[in-house]
Amino acid sequence: MLAFAGIPLGLSFRFLDPSPHAPAAEVGELLVGEYDDLELLDRLADGAAAVTYEFENVPVAAAKRVGAIPAATALEASQDRLVEKQLFRRLGIPTPKLDDEVDAFPAIRKTRRLGYDGKGQQLVEAWQGPDPAHVLEEHVPFDRELSLLAVRGADGETRFYPLVENVHEGGILRTSRAPALDAPQAEAEEYATRLLDELGYVGVLALELFDVGGSLLANEFAPRVHNTGHWTIEGAATSQFENHLRAVLGLPLGPTDSRPSVLVNLIGRVPAAADVLAVPGAHLHLYGKEPRPGRKLGHVTLVEPAEATERALHALVSDARAAKPPL
Amino acid sequence: MLAFAGIPLGLSFRFLDPSPHAPAAEVGELLVGEYDDLELLDRLADGAAAVTYEFENVPVAAAKRVGAIPAATALEASQDRLVEKQLFRRLGIPTPKLDDEVDAFPAIRKTRRLGYDGKGQQLVEAWQGPDPAHVLEEHVPFDRELSLLAVRGADGETRFYPLVENVHEGGILRTSRAPALDAPQAEAEEYATRLLDELGYVGVLALELFDVGGSLLANEFAPRVHNTGHWTIEGAATSQFENHLRAVLGLPLGPTDSRPSVLVNLIGRVPAAADVLAVPGAHLHLYGKEPRPGRKLGHVTLVEPAEATERALHALVSDARAAKPPL
Repeated sequence: MLAFAGIPLGLSFRFLDPSPHAPAAEVGELLVGEYDDLELLDRLADGAAAVTYEFENVPVAAAKRVGAIPAATALEASQDRLVEKQLFRRLGIPTPKLDDEVDAFPAIRKTRRLGYDGKGQQLVEAWQGPDPAHVLEEHVPFDRELSLLAVRGADGETRFYPLVENVHEGGILRTSRAPALDAPQAEAEEYATRLLDELGYVGVLALELFDVGGSLLANEFAPRVHNTGHWTIEGAATSQFENHLRAVLGLPLGPTDSRPSVLVNLIGRVPAAADVLAVPGAHLHLYGKEPRPGRKLGHVTLVEPAEATERALHALVSDARAAKPPL
Repeated sequence: MLAFAGIPLGLSFRFLDPSPHAPAAEVGELLVGEYDDLELLDRLADGAAAVTYEFENVPVAAAKRVGAIPAATALEASQDRLVEKQLFRRLGIPTPKLDDEVDAFPAIRKTRRLGYDGKGQQLVEAWQGPDPAHVLEEHVPFDRELSLLAVRGADGETRFYPLVENVHEGGILRTSRAPALDAPQAEAEEYATRLLDELGYVGVLALELFDVGGSLLANEFAPRVHNTGHWTIEGAATSQFENHLRAVLGLPLGPTDSRPSVLVNLIGRVPAAADVLAVPGAHLHLYGKEPRPGRKLGHVTLVEPAEATERALHALVSDARAAKPPL
């Protein structure tokens, strides 16, 4: 999706991915190998105007090697849940209770590193003392999950998309709705600004938040374009992908004016394309990945959808999921 | 642009182009060769769900060989200005005066075949009698040039985009504005419907019209996606590219609801990307072609532009043209 946004700007792309089946091969040169392969990293960066990443578990050393933007410092902070929460707190950004602060159980024990889509999490009944590999978090009784997509340019200019309301199931994002109704946009922007400025950040960043009775708690941030911002391709004046590229290349940012949009992820299995395209206004995005249970295979965006249209789309996607063979 | 629209639908692309530098190579497999190379045509069509074209001077025999959609009959009619005008007249679609009907001079002598962007045209002072290679057309004192983008599905369902007002200079399209103000949309749709139904057409078709005091005269049609519809990428609910693919693949058509948009072509030379992107809301599309005088190198679309924004864009594009080295 970065390449789709960038090729019309006159850019060409080279990718590094461990999988020879990476869909990016369709829209640029694909280097296949591990993220810590120094020779490949050097080939990746060779002659590039900028190097960026769209996966936050890229090794920090790799990001440093290629001089990635956003800078490796942001990546590093985002990769460790404890460091990340400590950063939030230092900046006065409220977070859930942690470790010995937790006073209600069950609470959630999370791996500090390499968590993704709810993996590496378990419910526990007591704090078991300091643990270098895990962090304990209170189970926040949130009303909803929100995310704020922000983009900061090389000159420090910062723009925001409207807060998005997200619904996860089994730790996997199912739907995002923009704008979230009656959302504390100013408060979220204030928190994101502190984070972006502290990190000297350049690019798109997603700040995930819990809304608890109108107050926000920061859950985590992702130093990259984000699934909860995929609706911006059709729903915003400039997509998160284009704005990320503009930022990392030192180009002027584009406007983030948005129209109400709903994004529905296609997980594990996709409905027939003809069925999706029969939903008026459905924008289908398939990623060209092999189907696998729990895998995000694509998404569908509706801009300014009528209620019936949205219902039709949800029914389709649910049917596809119901048809999923047991594993 | 067809590939950008199609890859997210799960499609992959193979292209045939005489140039090894064809930009399409970035987004699919490129076969390099002539359009009448039978072996390449067979390789092009091998295993394809559909074969289409986006250049109307493809040989009819080639379109037939690969079973192209839209069908070769549409291509054939569009390639000969006389046959095309006769077809319009048979369908009751008004056209400019032709050959011995022309009663005012200078008039325009046009090659019947292989005309493109105003090439193959000259002003003459008298009809010189029947000529198998040329047609004489009156110089229509039109108020404006309009085009209607239509798409017809495999099942005959037809949808229209709003009439577009076009400005050409030196025979080359400079700007398109959608919707054209106070335009005879119903009349244009009626004419296009006759043409589409007569041809049993499947895909996107552009009908170019002269508006003379509120009456329409058909100038020509293009059996393909069209430069005057490039604004639909951002300005319409479904782009002409996606709707063309939907049609030729027998998928449901998408809605053509549109927002007011202006398209400005980048011809011969392009402004610096940073300057274009500094224009709020400018959507830059560079085609990756070598600059050459008179060549369309890209376009910029503004959706719902403010007057000042539009002026800023036009100034930029004019400056780039003024900076064009003399040839």
